[in-house]
Amino acid sequence: MSDRESGSCAEAHVIEVAGRHFTLERAKLQDVPALVSLLADDPLGADRHVDDRQVYEAAFADIDHDPNQFLAVVRDPDGGLVGTMQVSLIPGLSRGAMTRVQIEAVRVAERARGVGLGSAMFAWAHEHGRRRGAGLAQLTTDNTRVEAHRFYARLGYQATHQGLKLPL
Amino acid sequence: MSDRESGSCAEAHVIEVAGRHFTLERAKLQDVPALVSLLADDPLGADRHVDDRQVYEAAFADIDHDPNQFLAVVRDPDGGLVGTMQVSLIPGLSRGAMTRVQIEAVRVAERARGVGLGSAMFAWAHEHGRRRGAGLAQLTTDNTRVEAHRFYARLGYQATHQGLKLPL
Repeated sequence: MSDRESGSCAEAHVIEVAGRHFTLERAKLQDVPALVSLLADDPLGADRHVDDRQVYEAAFADIDHDPNQFLAVVRDPDGGLVGTMQVSLIPGLSRGAMTRVQIEAVRVAERARGVGLGSAMFAWAHEHGRRRGAGLAQLTTDNTRVEAHRFYARLGYQATHQGLKLPL
Repeated sequence: MSDRESGSCAEAHVIEVAGRHFTLERAKLQDVPALVSLLADDPLGADRHVDDRQVYEAAFADIDHDPNQFLAVVRDPDGGLVGTMQVSLIPGLSRGAMTRVQIEAVRVAERARGVGLGSAMFAWAHEHGRRRGAGLAQLTTDNTRVEAHRFYARLGYQATHQGLKLPL
C-alpha cells in the first residue's frame, strides 16, 4: 500500500470504446486548468468553483504526493481532456481489515457521453483497487442525480447506505 | 497535508463527559486485538470479522504509515478501550479544491454509551479536519442503522447523498 504503483498504471491505460482509443493516466500539474473546467461543467459543480489557480495547484500537489490517491484524466484520440475521476485507497480494520476504494469527483465531458466511457473508467478503477488489495468500492452520489443512480445500479452498486455531509 | 500532525493531536486528547475523563489518541499496534473486538461487537460488524491477527496487523501498518489516516482509540478513566473511529483526510480539486474528512468504522462500547462520548468524538474529528484545512466532513451509514441516523442528524449532518457500495 505504501509504494507508489508501478507498472501498467503509471503509464497511460488505453480504453477502447465505440472504435475510438481513449487514454487514462495520472493527472499532471498542467492538466489542472482543464480539470477545473471539467469539474465546473456540471449542474452541481458549477456553484462550487473558486477563481484561484493557486488553490487548485496546492490541492493538486496534496493529491499527487499521496500514494493512496490517483487522480485520473481521460483523453480522447485528439488529446482533449474528456474525463476525470479521483480514486482513493483507504486501508482499515473493519470488514475483516478490508481496504476500500473510494471514488470521488467523476466527470465525463458532454461530447464524450453515451459511448460507454464512464463504464470503462469504473472498470479501470475497480481493477486498480483489486491490484492494490481492495475488496470494496464505494462512492456517494447526490440524491438529485437520478441518471447517475441508474448508471451506478447498472454497474452493480447497491444503495445500502445514506451519504451524510457536514460543512466544517 | 503531507506531514504527520504534531502538537495536541499526537498526544492524548482529554474528553470530559459526565464528569469522567476519557482520552482519545492515535491507536498503537498493541491496541489491535481490542479494536478488532470492539468493531465486531456490533449487529453488522459481527458478520464481517475474520480470524487472522496478521491480517489486522498488516492493515494497521498501512493505516499507521499513511499521514492522512488517523485511527483513534478512546479509553475510559481505567484505561479500557471504549471507542474508536477512523478519520481520513482526502485532498481533492472539486468543491473549490476542498479537502474532505471522511469518517469510517465508528464504535462506542455499550458500557460507555448514553453519556455524550460519541458526540465528543465527532467534535474532535471535525476539529482535527479543520486544523488540516478540511471544509467538509462525510460518512456513510447503513440504511438499517436508524438510531445512528438520528445521532448524525443531531450533529448537523445532512443526508443529501446515497451511499453506494460494490464488492470487488
